[in-house]
Amino acid sequence: MSLRKKNRLSIEEYKAGVLSGDRIALSRAITLVESTLDEDNELGARLIDELFQYTGNSFRVGITGVPGVGKSTFIESFGSHILDEGKKLAVLTIDPSSQKTGGSILGDKTRMEKLSQSKNAFIRPSPSGDALGGVAQKTRESMLLCEAAGFDVIFVETVGVGQSETAVKNMVDFFLLLMLSGAGDELQGIKKGIMEMADAIAINKADGNNIEAAKKAKKEYQNALHLFPANENGWIPKVGICSALENSGLSDIWDLLKEFQAQQKESGYFDHNRKEQSIHWMHQTIHHYLKRNFYKSPEIKENLLKFEDAVRQGDKHSVQAARLLLENYFNKLS
Amino acid sequence: MSLRKKNRLSIEEYKAGVLSGDRIALSRAITLVESTLDEDNELGARLIDELFQYTGNSFRVGITGVPGVGKSTFIESFGSHILDEGKKLAVLTIDPSSQKTGGSILGDKTRMEKLSQSKNAFIRPSPSGDALGGVAQKTRESMLLCEAAGFDVIFVETVGVGQSETAVKNMVDFFLLLMLSGAGDELQGIKKGIMEMADAIAINKADGNNIEAAKKAKKEYQNALHLFPANENGWIPKVGICSALENSGLSDIWDLLKEFQAQQKESGYFDHNRKEQSIHWMHQTIHHYLKRNFYKSPEIKENLLKFEDAVRQGDKHSVQAARLLLENYFNKLS
Repeated sequence: MSLRKKNRLSIEEYKAGVLSGDRIALSRAITLVESTLDEDNELGARLIDELFQYTGNSFRVGITGVPGVGKSTFIESFGSHILDEGKKLAVLTIDPSSQKTGGSILGDKTRMEKLSQSKNAFIRPSPSGDALGGVAQKTRESMLLCEAAGFDVIFVETVGVGQSETAVKNMVDFFLLLMLSGAGDELQGIKKGIMEMADAIAINKADGNNIEAAKKAKKEYQNALHLFPANENGWIPKVGICSALENSGLSDIWDLLKEFQAQQKESGYFDHNRKEQSIHWMHQTIHHYLKRNFYKSPEIKENLLKFEDAVRQGDKHSVQAARLLLENYFNKLS
Repeated sequence: MSLRKKNRLSIEEYKAGVLSGDRIALSRAITLVESTLDEDNELGARLIDELFQYTGNSFRVGITGVPGVGKSTFIESFGSHILDEGKKLAVLTIDPSSQKTGGSILGDKTRMEKLSQSKNAFIRPSPSGDALGGVAQKTRESMLLCEAAGFDVIFVETVGVGQSETAVKNMVDFFLLLMLSGAGDELQGIKKGIMEMADAIAINKADGNNIEAAKKAKKEYQNALHLFPANENGWIPKVGICSALENSGLSDIWDLLKEFQAQQKESGYFDHNRKEQSIHWMHQTIHHYLKRNFYKSPEIKENLLKFEDAVRQGDKHSVQAARLLLENYFNKLS
């Protein structure tokens, strides 16, 4: 039976498909873990259990930058460079803005044409997440599935204007921020605090008349990064310049990532960071399901908006409203 | 019966005491809401219910800065300036570091001698919170109690190196960051992302040989602040210089706060912000109690460390561990 036809596979089919690197099976496995149906959740969790021993072998890279910074072109060119080294690359996107239209699949495939045609690349757009940290949760699990499918490098792409960057920082080994050269106002639109998370800044569109400005920006960002405290892993954030359009500077940036990886593995911080991230995920998963269970329960669904209104109008205060809702919830549970 | 003697007051005694502005009653009411005993929690919640209509009339100001920036001296001098205008001032401190020693009461009273002797000032050190956002939760409720007791201005002080600043930002009207002049490395030690939350930066210790450096730092910070996106409330963060020691520049900074307050009330953003903060608090309170209930349950207490170890060792993966713990928890609940 074709993997394309059947609605849901057996756990063995999913597992064998993912492990063989079959991109359709991988895609469907991700759909499974992204599902909000309890039944799918159950199966998805079991699948992750089964595949867990095959995960962890990729280099996880977060990439962020505001719209207009040339993120797609960068990922397309940078990704191709990585493919040329014989590596397999998966690109996962967290784009809160695309959740509304639901149309990001076509968009992503179109904007990364070259990658999407390569057998060694896998592109996956945003899941349609809820407001409860669900997107990050799903992305973590998708990342594990990609690892089990044998991908060596995983990009987790975000837009850099949302809430997702801290979550991404907590699930990747390396955090790359894309910026533009310009008149000092290039931070406009970047969410406050994101620059400080970066392990490296890549100044994109350093081509034509922009080259001098990019060099100047590089210096400025290097100075700015010095203002921030040193990272506990001993890595000093670097600034590179590149042109994704002209394919220049990309290998320097890739070298920089590899330098980071080598240094961090040498110092033991790479593993240390992964372990701490795992504990963090465990607690995040717990918090996620505690909230999900609460907000999905019929009593809460029925009353939440009413209570929010009452709080906004000053009829109830926050703690009072919270306690009443909680009382309701726990009473129904027991 | 003296308020000092009795172990626990009746709700009417607490209420009357707080509303009369009695600082001992206020202090004990705060102890009540800070308590981790379920019985106290119940009473504390009822007290807040009773007092809620008397809250909301203060100007809530978050003040943060690393140790060494002269925070105590600043609050002492700045606070005295505010008292001189006939206002009543409460200072609440969130200092995670002091939770370990438990000895912050004496410390706080000593380091703000002048304020602590004034009838119109009230100083309250950190509650001993848990790791679950409890400190912020308690501080919010303490703030409401201080408002009911008639305090016009409330400082919420944090150390600027912890996790508390975002929480504080979400409970105050104005966020003031204390900095030092220096050679560009003055951000050392400030938690990443804090500068971007500031409605104003006050460069302290601008006295003696430091004045020129402070003026230079002012310019640098003003430039740095321009790199960040505009606030949705239309306020452009300001930089001031002062010497708490020499009592200079403090009235300019106070004027700046009053300018902010006037502008924001005029634009309606002051109220808008308060309402949104209330909704935020409601959800935070819900999340807090969901987690608290989970981590306090006997099944979880018994097994958590074991599961964390298993995750660290790679014997279980994060999601698996989380789900097993949750299953356990919900089974025992129902």
